[in-house]
Amino acid sequence: MLKLGEIQGLPAGAPVALEAGLQAFIAERDMPLYRMMSFQLGWVDENGSPAERQPPPRLHGMSCLAAAEAVGGGFNTAIWSAVAVELAYNFWQVHADVEDGNTERDGRPSVWWAWGPAQAINAGDGMHAMARLAMFRSRHADAGAEQLAAAIKLFDEAIATLCEGEYLDISFQEKLSVRIDEYLAMAEARTGALFGCAMQLGATAGGCMQADLTQPMAAFGIKLGAARQVGGDIAALWGNAVDKSQTGRLTAKKKSLPVVHAIATGTPTVRRKLGDMYVQRSLGSDDMKEAALILDECGSRKFAQDTYARLLSEADQSLVTAGLGHDGTELMRAVARSIAGDPEP
Amino acid sequence: MLKLGEIQGLPAGAPVALEAGLQAFIAERDMPLYRMMSFQLGWVDENGSPAERQPPPRLHGMSCLAAAEAVGGGFNTAIWSAVAVELAYNFWQVHADVEDGNTERDGRPSVWWAWGPAQAINAGDGMHAMARLAMFRSRHADAGAEQLAAAIKLFDEAIATLCEGEYLDISFQEKLSVRIDEYLAMAEARTGALFGCAMQLGATAGGCMQADLTQPMAAFGIKLGAARQVGGDIAALWGNAVDKSQTGRLTAKKKSLPVVHAIATGTPTVRRKLGDMYVQRSLGSDDMKEAALILDECGSRKFAQDTYARLLSEADQSLVTAGLGHDGTELMRAVARSIAGDPEP
Repeated sequence: MLKLGEIQGLPAGAPVALEAGLQAFIAERDMPLYRMMSFQLGWVDENGSPAERQPPPRLHGMSCLAAAEAVGGGFNTAIWSAVAVELAYNFWQVHADVEDGNTERDGRPSVWWAWGPAQAINAGDGMHAMARLAMFRSRHADAGAEQLAAAIKLFDEAIATLCEGEYLDISFQEKLSVRIDEYLAMAEARTGALFGCAMQLGATAGGCMQADLTQPMAAFGIKLGAARQVGGDIAALWGNAVDKSQTGRLTAKKKSLPVVHAIATGTPTVRRKLGDMYVQRSLGSDDMKEAALILDECGSRKFAQDTYARLLSEADQSLVTAGLGHDGTELMRAVARSIAGDPEP
Repeated sequence: MLKLGEIQGLPAGAPVALEAGLQAFIAERDMPLYRMMSFQLGWVDENGSPAERQPPPRLHGMSCLAAAEAVGGGFNTAIWSAVAVELAYNFWQVHADVEDGNTERDGRPSVWWAWGPAQAINAGDGMHAMARLAMFRSRHADAGAEQLAAAIKLFDEAIATLCEGEYLDISFQEKLSVRIDEYLAMAEARTGALFGCAMQLGATAGGCMQADLTQPMAAFGIKLGAARQVGGDIAALWGNAVDKSQTGRLTAKKKSLPVVHAIATGTPTVRRKLGDMYVQRSLGSDDMKEAALILDECGSRKFAQDTYARLLSEADQSLVTAGLGHDGTELMRAVARSIAGDPEP
């Protein structure tokens, strides 16, 4: 069995090198602000003592390393891009936990729960700046400033797109009726953009500049991210969801694809039942069980499963278009399995 | 009398060009997320209708334009750097209002008060990304990617420093005893770093790359920012403070220099009185009046006034070191007066 962070076909040194890069980068700055980042990244507990736990899978950083490996550059060429995208993901999570009121993350207190919302918002901002500073390390000895500037711009555009997606996701809380295409645009922006960026930066760092390869790699990441979000929706309703931030999304009335589908296409009875539920301030676990039952009966579970499968298939088509050759393609398929997860194991 | 945003010695076209640059940049993206930014920047009301008000003084952007003018490059060379620092300042203010619970800014609801904290945190993040994207426009036709990368790195380092200062400022809320040097380090980082960055980016955009000019310009901005923060402390206690975010800092038990000084050097009676006040959950306006009286009597008002004057004098020494020539120096002195304000008019 693979350990956390390991991906079939990727050298075992890759997660080790990513973790070492992240640690060294944050350790350069010795201030309490950076200890909050070390907590978020899983290395220390609230008091700064070493945490006895495996770091989380680092899917964004690993996607970036795998893309560099898959284009033949070797994962080591993409360490600093991987550090940057992983820090970006984590800054967003620190803020998302404040936004959603999540008191827990990965079985520990969230940063705002441990340090208060003010320090958490600021620590996320600091991590956002650190993510970009990591990009400056990504410069290769043999590549120019031109390439570096292009990579940083790509990174910044991905963050702006992520915020556009996050805006939609939050605004859907107040809307009963959300169109399916609006939901999918939100998922591609909110969860897809950063994976797309990770793939594209990795491929570029690995030495591949041709747009006919890097663009399909970005599309691969974007579709995978959207699939991951739909998979999370399914898992929260019908999986053995242990991830409180997923079920938290539901109770906070963030719109999941099955609900969007049922409200858009369901019978008047289905729409009324869900409408009654969603006018409440928040949803309880009984509400969620009832919702799961209704959504299953009216075909919205099936619709979400089909959409999940379709997004994965579109991701794979993009991967094939990139034309990485056999080993590279199989490596990225292993990455895809890690990102997509298994909503109903 | 000069209008808001105008600075003696700077062409009247400068604030107009800055405002036009900011507006055009945000208007490129037509999504509700960007309308929240337009609200923060003062152009529209909560409903998106044009706001009938003067934009705020844009001190960071204007500092940047003035620095470019002062080195002889003309303010137009620094428009995009100015847009970037102004957006950075505003992203920080959106987040600071959530952090401090300020319901008002410039006589209007703060962003979080109008849209809720989740949307405000996310809009701040989006503005942070937009600030950096503006930096990419700062590239001159005749300057290389190398210079652009250096400017962006400078910008990112300033944001990281700002967050370090903000961390300290928030952490002082929970500490009764803060050393004077800790306070000053906080003020230089929190309020100084972004002014220092604005000055340095402006000088560079204006065509000046020599470190023996750009470094003193950065120091000039950093000291001015620290002076501005001390001035704000004085204004909140003894000025005709109409800025609710300043008095809000006091009631939220953010440590101001007079209080830091009195607790560090006051008699046991003074320390006990202030200690009793600061163990309360928050301070009321009666507390603040009493504090102002105590702090005046024990010499802490005088200490803050002297520190304010010293920081302004140090800023001016840095300016003289930069050696801008007569007109440039006088222009930057006018900028200094705008930044420093007048704590006790």
